[in-house]
Amino acid sequence: MPKTEQWQWYVERFSPAELHQHAIEETYFAGRTAFQNVAVIRTATFGKMLIIDGDTQSSQADERIYHETLVHPALAAIDDRSEVLILGGGEGATLREALRRPDVRRCTMVDIDGEVVALSKRYLAEWSDGAFDDPRASVIVGDALAYLKEDRGTYGAIVSDLTEPLADSPSNPLFCDAVFDDIKRRLAPGGVYVLQASTAGFHNMELHAKMARTLRGRYRFVRSFYAHVPAFDNDWAFLACSDTVDVAALASERIDAYVAGLRGESYFYDAETHRRLFALPIYLRRELAKEGDVF
Amino acid sequence: MPKTEQWQWYVERFSPAELHQHAIEETYFAGRTAFQNVAVIRTATFGKMLIIDGDTQSSQADERIYHETLVHPALAAIDDRSEVLILGGGEGATLREALRRPDVRRCTMVDIDGEVVALSKRYLAEWSDGAFDDPRASVIVGDALAYLKEDRGTYGAIVSDLTEPLADSPSNPLFCDAVFDDIKRRLAPGGVYVLQASTAGFHNMELHAKMARTLRGRYRFVRSFYAHVPAFDNDWAFLACSDTVDVAALASERIDAYVAGLRGESYFYDAETHRRLFALPIYLRRELAKEGDVF
Amino acid sequence: MPKTEQWQWYVERFSPAELHQHAIEETYFAGRTAFQNVAVIRTATFGKMLIIDGDTQSSQADERIYHETLVHPALAAIDDRSEVLILGGGEGATLREALRRPDVRRCTMVDIDGEVVALSKRYLAEWSDGAFDDPRASVIVGDALAYLKEDRGTYGAIVSDLTEPLADSPSNPLFCDAVFDDIKRRLAPGGVYVLQASTAGFHNMELHAKMARTLRGRYRFVRSFYAHVPAFDNDWAFLACSDTVDVAALASERIDAYVAGLRGESYFYDAETHRRLFALPIYLRRELAKEGDVF
Amino acid sequence: MPKTEQWQWYVERFSPAELHQHAIEETYFAGRTAFQNVAVIRTATFGKMLIIDGDTQSSQADERIYHETLVHPALAAIDDRSEVLILGGGEGATLREALRRPDVRRCTMVDIDGEVVALSKRYLAEWSDGAFDDPRASVIVGDALAYLKEDRGTYGAIVSDLTEPLADSPSNPLFCDAVFDDIKRRLAPGGVYVLQASTAGFHNMELHAKMARTLRGRYRFVRSFYAHVPAFDNDWAFLACSDTVDVAALASERIDAYVAGLRGESYFYDAETHRRLFALPIYLRRELAKEGDVF
Repeated sequence: MPKTEQWQWYVERFSPAELHQHAIEETYFAGRTAFQNVAVIRTATFGKMLIIDGDTQSSQADERIYHETLVHPALAAIDDRSEVLILGGGEGATLREALRRPDVRRCTMVDIDGEVVALSKRYLAEWSDGAFDDPRASVIVGDALAYLKEDRGTYGAIVSDLTEPLADSPSNPLFCDAVFDDIKRRLAPGGVYVLQASTAGFHNMELHAKMARTLRGRYRFVRSFYAHVPAFDNDWAFLACSDTVDVAALASERIDAYVAGLRGESYFYDAETHRRLFALPIYLRRELAKEGDVF
Repeated sequence: MPKTEQWQWYVERFSPAELHQHAIEETYFAGRTAFQNVAVIRTATFGKMLIIDGDTQSSQADERIYHETLVHPALAAIDDRSEVLILGGGEGATLREALRRPDVRRCTMVDIDGEVVALSKRYLAEWSDGAFDDPRASVIVGDALAYLKEDRGTYGAIVSDLTEPLADSPSNPLFCDAVFDDIKRRLAPGGVYVLQASTAGFHNMELHAKMARTLRGRYRFVRSFYAHVPAFDNDWAFLACSDTVDVAALASERIDAYVAGLRGESYFYDAETHRRLFALPIYLRRELAKEGDVF
Repeated sequence: MPKTEQWQWYVERFSPAELHQHAIEETYFAGRTAFQNVAVIRTATFGKMLIIDGDTQSSQADERIYHETLVHPALAAIDDRSEVLILGGGEGATLREALRRPDVRRCTMVDIDGEVVALSKRYLAEWSDGAFDDPRASVIVGDALAYLKEDRGTYGAIVSDLTEPLADSPSNPLFCDAVFDDIKRRLAPGGVYVLQASTAGFHNMELHAKMARTLRGRYRFVRSFYAHVPAFDNDWAFLACSDTVDVAALASERIDAYVAGLRGESYFYDAETHRRLFALPIYLRRELAKEGDVF
Repeated sequence: MPKTEQWQWYVERFSPAELHQHAIEETYFAGRTAFQNVAVIRTATFGKMLIIDGDTQSSQADERIYHETLVHPALAAIDDRSEVLILGGGEGATLREALRRPDVRRCTMVDIDGEVVALSKRYLAEWSDGAFDDPRASVIVGDALAYLKEDRGTYGAIVSDLTEPLADSPSNPLFCDAVFDDIKRRLAPGGVYVLQASTAGFHNMELHAKMARTLRGRYRFVRSFYAHVPAFDNDWAFLACSDTVDVAALASERIDAYVAGLRGESYFYDAETHRRLFALPIYLRRELAKEGDVF
């Protein structure tokens, strides 16, 4: 192999004993925003990758697995999609997926890091694919927490793409009673709150289970689902929360009709994929059934 | 971190541009058998790992994901489980799973590398968990190909745990018409031939699709299913082939009854997991629908 | 350690079995010139580093070891330093060292890659330290080979900082009889031709020995010397060739006087260091004494 | 490259930002003695390597650079070589070098880790090359500190191959006034105390300088010398201490005569190499001239 193409590597450290290395073909950007270290690189297998504070955020090759999973089960489950709120989601791909449904009349996105939004527009245009220019998009650079507190609107779906509450994460304060109250107040009747909810791998599913336990005290239906996202080198989990809809139990006919109403072609999600996402293996169901502490 | 515990690493190279590194806590064995390079190590996340020719074969922490998936859908689908044949499967875990059903009266396993079998008994006893000593087990050290040709028995399930037909693999000649004929001749009426069938990741699903295309010319039902196996760092695919049973369409009640008849506790597989395994995402269904060459 | 600072690594591959990894703190530039792949990064131990085609060219922390060694033994050995010619040397540090002697009236430098010169001015200003702006410097962007052929000047010292003639290197044609003739024609009476001459490590000294053998057929005195350059992870060798001066045998008094006439402070070289450079260990002398093929 | 030969790597971590990786061809031993973690591996470039607590101790390919440098300058400097004492030196190569002089009538070696001695005999026989069986060798498994305190002999040379006093090292208490007193008491008149004395690389020479400062308070002549040892990826330093002999100033004729009296062939050391070892570059002389704290 030509020595020249292997000189620079992105090393993701999952633990002191587990590393994943990707040879870097090109570095588009590497620097610091006001909030975090950000890099945009390109690798052979994953194409362009967004890396924040040393963690893969999404890759060109498989970001649709993550973003279709985050958005569509929730949107398929609700009747009134006119107002959708996204917390985080700086790359614009969550926004893109939401706006594929014409009945989404406005999609509000609140992300604290305007520089990540700008970098994504510049280097990751495939992610947003024009969504930032859609007249239905309302992109707010600001603190999602403050926004929730001051906002007076209600939303059929609130989609949280925020960092999970890791022990040392700046998103940790975003996962507490006050915020849950604010989110619930903004959820329209019949609405669904869906969030990325950490990992579901056999070796790191405890945080997901704790998040699920916490939210089960606040919603009638709290459903775990997950997909293997290769760029994350992990099974990634989500939670769909609602007092009225059991997202795990959506009829295939309903999903088929929903998917038929999406503009453009899907890569990952439809009724069959929905069944995969919500059918959990024994070890994960056992973990979710455990009692334990909550946030 | 203590320097001393990080000095030795197992580096799995998926491509010249993608590596996964595991810190080695202990090396139990590293050497060459008559057929291949074999190592048994221990890592923090995966426990003991069996490595052959630089590829992870299975890990203590998640081998049940792989082996339950390989064995149980096929066994759940057939009515007569009295005779089961395993091709390969040196660690003994495929054997272990088959023998969990009391109605398996004999399970014959043919593996060419007796040294791997011996090493597995010595270092990976958790994998076979006594199966090698079960009076119903018949373990033959020999060439699976020759065995199939000379054998006169028939089997309700033939479970192939052989290496997939990679371009440069010694298992390549195992995937051809003559072998397919031999396997079909050994399959009892109503039987299922199930095989590990390469990877189903978005970036490396072509070989699986080619294997599926090949077998669709020989069986009425050829069903793909897959599970993410973390130690493989990949979605691992399987094919269930039969002229009589559509393994993808098994009723949950049938699976429940089958699972209830298994000795010991399962880690991964039951009726809900079965739905996950066989519900494929769009991108994989598209790949499987493509026309192309066959073996 | 903060995960964020370790995400990007420069991996230098010395052989398929030997790698050296440096965590990258910042990437100033990574791209392709008309001739080669070039990167400028910063690491904790070595400061800024220039990397060409995956090989370390020089580091801020120890480039003076390399450049003082390349320039000063030759300049100390000659009487007339008014004209000096540098082949290659794009970073400008060879130029800088030559110009530290006021009796160097003109220093001509010929480097084929004007983009490397421009990048060095922009990002590696510490290397040239103003030398490019010295009125005595004459910097020519062009082919050193063609320059030697057409030039009519003579030089007290010709300093070659070109790539060694590795089997697959573009510098390979630079190391042949026609070029040796051209160089000798440009060397003033009493002059010294000095060149970087590959590595002198116990495991990779054959190329150096072959270069020495080749030049011994053309000069009365051909002296090997070497220094360990940590950023190269190797002992780096040089050859001083002359028909009149034995550079290895310079009197300490002569070197003292020479060094006293240098502007600014030296980091590495003086009479004591000169003794170190030219005193070779047994294994290297044995290699140099071997007969063998020449270029 | 064949995947199978690259699966296992020895990663030496010089700092959180600098790693050197060696592909392991074979692991002869990896385990824990009563004192330390020990491994014996083989790599392509360095042959067999001894690794203790994650640090390279010596390699088959270049251990003679280290051991000839440790032993011969001191032995060349003294007149009475009849009694030599080695502190540490478990591999037996220091012993081997000392016993190459027939006028060494007894060489006593004290190493605390008998298991390292036994492993070296079994796996690293090239290092000791029969020295353990030499009737002049007296190998004591025990605490060098206690031995020095209780011993009543005197030695023309005391050769310390103990770990340098790193902040967190178990050898730290070995470097203190009480021990210096004990060593001096055991040194015969005209004797030399020589010790490996940490690294002399531009980025890690402070500890060596502090060791030198400390010993300058106790001996009339304290001379630094160093060699680049590729397997250590560093310039390795030593100190030769004596109240009567300036080891740096040995006449070449004396060294020639000494070397002529060595059995077998040397790889690295003779009078020319001696000049290299003791001729220090400016940056190291500057560091050694600094005032500062002592042990």
